[in-house]
Amino acid sequence: MLKINENFQKLPGSYLFAETARRTKAYQAAHPEREVIRLGIGDVTRPLAPAVVSAMRAAAAEMGVQETFRGYGPDFGYDFLVNAIREGEYAARGIQLDYDEVFISDGSKCDVGSIQELFSADARIAVTDPVYPVYVDSNAMAGRLGDFRDGRWTRLCYLPCTEENGFVPPLPDREVDVIYLCYPNNPTGTVLTRAQLKPFVDWALAHGAVIVYDAAYRAYITEEDIPRSIYEIEGAKACAIECCSFSKTAGFTGTRCAWTVVPHEVRGQGADGAPVELNALWKRRMATKFNGVSYPVQRAAAAVYTAEGQAQIRETIDAYMRNARAIREGLAAQGYRVFGGVNAPYIWLRTPAGIDSWAFFDLLLEKCQVVGTPGAGFGPSGEGYFRLTAFNTYEKTMEAMERLAALG
Amino acid sequence: MLKINENFQKLPGSYLFAETARRTKAYQAAHPEREVIRLGIGDVTRPLAPAVVSAMRAAAAEMGVQETFRGYGPDFGYDFLVNAIREGEYAARGIQLDYDEVFISDGSKCDVGSIQELFSADARIAVTDPVYPVYVDSNAMAGRLGDFRDGRWTRLCYLPCTEENGFVPPLPDREVDVIYLCYPNNPTGTVLTRAQLKPFVDWALAHGAVIVYDAAYRAYITEEDIPRSIYEIEGAKACAIECCSFSKTAGFTGTRCAWTVVPHEVRGQGADGAPVELNALWKRRMATKFNGVSYPVQRAAAAVYTAEGQAQIRETIDAYMRNARAIREGLAAQGYRVFGGVNAPYIWLRTPAGIDSWAFFDLLLEKCQVVGTPGAGFGPSGEGYFRLTAFNTYEKTMEAMERLAALG
Repeated sequence: MLKINENFQKLPGSYLFAETARRTKAYQAAHPEREVIRLGIGDVTRPLAPAVVSAMRAAAAEMGVQETFRGYGPDFGYDFLVNAIREGEYAARGIQLDYDEVFISDGSKCDVGSIQELFSADARIAVTDPVYPVYVDSNAMAGRLGDFRDGRWTRLCYLPCTEENGFVPPLPDREVDVIYLCYPNNPTGTVLTRAQLKPFVDWALAHGAVIVYDAAYRAYITEEDIPRSIYEIEGAKACAIECCSFSKTAGFTGTRCAWTVVPHEVRGQGADGAPVELNALWKRRMATKFNGVSYPVQRAAAAVYTAEGQAQIRETIDAYMRNARAIREGLAAQGYRVFGGVNAPYIWLRTPAGIDSWAFFDLLLEKCQVVGTPGAGFGPSGEGYFRLTAFNTYEKTMEAMERLAALG
Repeated sequence: MLKINENFQKLPGSYLFAETARRTKAYQAAHPEREVIRLGIGDVTRPLAPAVVSAMRAAAAEMGVQETFRGYGPDFGYDFLVNAIREGEYAARGIQLDYDEVFISDGSKCDVGSIQELFSADARIAVTDPVYPVYVDSNAMAGRLGDFRDGRWTRLCYLPCTEENGFVPPLPDREVDVIYLCYPNNPTGTVLTRAQLKPFVDWALAHGAVIVYDAAYRAYITEEDIPRSIYEIEGAKACAIECCSFSKTAGFTGTRCAWTVVPHEVRGQGADGAPVELNALWKRRMATKFNGVSYPVQRAAAAVYTAEGQAQIRETIDAYMRNARAIREGLAAQGYRVFGGVNAPYIWLRTPAGIDSWAFFDLLLEKCQVVGTPGAGFGPSGEGYFRLTAFNTYEKTMEAMERLAALG
């Protein structure tokens, strides 16, 4: 009989957001008269920008006309979008990328989940802790993380981020081959300054490691000293792959478009010991297992870089950040220890003494009908913390703060 | 230094269609005055159906309005599309599928490339030969195929399909765990009748193997006795995964939508020897490394199943099949031995005696300015054959036939 990939069986049973959804649903079934306010999942709620919708509709119309119909697009994205990203996201910040270093995809989750296919089966992985689960699960499925015991993978290097170290991860204390960093951070909402990020680039260069840098929340950065791209750090083009997305920047969670940068200078070691460009491997991977992003979606994404597109997405991001501020300030006024929310749409708070993160989830659901996400779901160092998101409406966000205040 | 996945280095150097494109480009550069007719790549050329375009435009407009905006969709597809497929593709043929057995994706290439993640690292693979390269390359990248020597993978079981056996593959002559079948076949354009497919299902059931059945060209079937789905064969729901696509059915090569069926009854063996549903593993894989298909694209795909959508796509398929007939009959009249083209948009022909498939490619390009695809590019048993596609216009297709006739 066909044997399955046994690594799947090592994964812990229930997916975090499946469990929070299950508890929420059970509560609502028992209390149908109470209105639940959701500050849990990191999904946007405001409509696409008019410039984006207009571009997508125009491109859909093109697909219905013989002269303008498009079949398979270029494997790695249309030049109009690749160049808009090179210009709007990188050249505008003094970063020059080659045309074939930018790969368009249908989502950052897909790319950060698949990038590990380029690494050897025994590559040693490090992640910040707490962490977005995809980096961990995708490597666990490939058998790189050992076994899951007592809430930890035996072969994974955890870099704890807690109030005690100001949410600045320590450098790895052992040899690792790959470091996943996500900044602005999901789930903590915290950031690294250029000075705090630089040691990671230096460490990677010194140790021959590769950094996978997830910058999905870069558009939420408000402070000057915070890098929007890891390539703002000297040397990063020789050691870092960067994954970005239109999901949070332009509300594309249901529209699906993203990009990944794999600079030519980033290399690994081949079987014969010679250096190999990861760019060439990623091209082969994408050409073999992917077939491009929908043309109307690529047109929609390119419209983000028009003047009106930029103004419109800025307005939406500002609205979310107004919510973030309301949550941050509201919780602080209530005596919570609060982090993030300045350069990210996530607020990370310490649960009250003696209440673990799942108990706090249940408490908020039952007493306030507010749904958040327990920190323990993001990794061992997430215990004792809780995540709230800024993606609901301002009115609901304010009401949630009032309900929490009434909790006392 | 990070070690790369060394299996990438075992892949043969140049991708088939990259090489045909390179030679075509070189020829055109040398002869800019001559018009090349492309019957090479399997990409559609006719516009999307009006019903499809209209649905996509309406859905794009919804995304721009607060009340109808949609963020992340359901992980495995919207119910309106899943149910349209269950009804239109399966129930209409007497096949009942559970709601959670159908998974919407952005392309069959992605699914047939990724399905191997569910199999153990040492699973034994069989493919028909010649074959669509993704089944082979995706397993080679995962290290299952051994080494590539003299044009063959040392650990891959080839099932040759040639004129001698009527393009009906033999059953595996050794134990294998997975058999990839593509019918109607790419590249040969040939099909299996129900009676010819049944022994594969029986073999898989008897040997505990799984069939990955790629039915991307099912909409081109014209003959009654040819199964549109492997689930028309008794027992297939216990051993077969089926991948289908809107690419060729409805011209979605640049729009991107597909589906994969993983019945609950299809099982593999876990580390402890107990059977495990591949359905559960695929759910976990897709929830971890994929984030759904663009909402407007899913609405576009669902419009294929409206009465007008069905009539419109039928008209397009009929036009392509008129080309297929013209190629088939034209070549036969010229004395070629011709296969396929009756239930598929591909025509497979024997190259003239003494001319191998790459030499025939060069000959057609240079003497007729017609581009096809050399059979050897699809596997060792493709040598001596050549593929032409029915996706150009009728006028260009007829002109290509005239040019070939003049070749004599």
